[in-house]
Amino acid sequence: MDDKRLDEQLQFVLEIDKLKHVLRRTLLPMGRRENSAEHSWHLAMCVLLLAEYADEKIDLARTVLMALVHDIVEVDAGDVYAYDDAAQRHKAERERKAADRLFNMLPPDQARQMREVWDEFEGRQTPESRFANAVDRFQPILLNHASRGESWRQYGITSERILARNRSIEAGSVRLWRYVEMLVEDALKQGYLYE
Amino acid sequence: MDDKRLDEQLQFVLEIDKLKHVLRRTLLPMGRRENSAEHSWHLAMCVLLLAEYADEKIDLARTVLMALVHDIVEVDAGDVYAYDDAAQRHKAERERKAADRLFNMLPPDQARQMREVWDEFEGRQTPESRFANAVDRFQPILLNHASRGESWRQYGITSERILARNRSIEAGSVRLWRYVEMLVEDALKQGYLYE
Repeated sequence: MDDKRLDEQLQFVLEIDKLKHVLRRTLLPMGRRENSAEHSWHLAMCVLLLAEYADEKIDLARTVLMALVHDIVEVDAGDVYAYDDAAQRHKAERERKAADRLFNMLPPDQARQMREVWDEFEGRQTPESRFANAVDRFQPILLNHASRGESWRQYGITSERILARNRSIEAGSVRLWRYVEMLVEDALKQGYLYE
Repeated sequence: MDDKRLDEQLQFVLEIDKLKHVLRRTLLPMGRRENSAEHSWHLAMCVLLLAEYADEKIDLARTVLMALVHDIVEVDAGDVYAYDDAAQRHKAERERKAADRLFNMLPPDQARQMREVWDEFEGRQTPESRFANAVDRFQPILLNHASRGESWRQYGITSERILARNRSIEAGSVRLWRYVEMLVEDALKQGYLYE
């Protein structure tokens, strides 16, 4: 039995368990902050359920895989708030270092596979990565609307910033982008959001 | 635009968000109880990373899908502790009712797909469901060992019960079952567990 291989795999399994403690700014409708592990599950489910709205033909299994893997680097790099421009600037370098350390805990073949999936997600050069990124931006807007915009108001996020920051959703799904515009309009009407 | 369809899908997406608040008995190594949403993500990652230990040929994408969907019924039915024999007896009926309500929130084609995946997982009649079930039992043992058996001792679980209750892991993966035997032996040696 190749004990070393299984040991490396299980060390990685235990290491990524820490993603359950990385908190995002998104407030769940029931009132606590979302963590990046449960977010990754929810994103994978959204990808599965909303795949028909992808504007390009996608390999669904690969897109789900991206959803599962895309935030693992946050075990080292932490979650960066979508609307924190200063932190966003250093994010890429920190996450690259995290990917180098974390994925290389795995046996080389799996380390390479995971890294490829993560690089593809970050690169947004394929239909799968464009759709996965679109849904990754769509899901928090849906949740923040459902929790009556509490997180948006707390951080002073305006409707303009939401629309400017998330416009890339349109590159993956025009339909989901139209829905975001409708959610933001409704949020303004309901007072969930500042103009 | 077929608004009704997207609305139904997003109502379901928001409904299953509640899985993030369903707490399991498993203690995370960092000391709080695991919820069923983050567990589902972790299980999907375990399935991906440990697929080579499945004793039968499996369709990996379908097995990952089972991991993502298998606990959704807990939104209504709650999590039932693996070692609570009385609650286990009523579990099947409660979960069937939950599946009827929850999956039928979706448009009929997707409701049927999700239900098929969940029924297959529960039935354990296919290689994919045998492996998904095996990993679903393996993951908490790995975490409970990593958190020094605190949850096992809290509920008075003995090594004998762990081995009796989880023996079905062997039907999906002899290699993972051997690993469980080794973990339980080590837990006894370290005093994580009562004999």
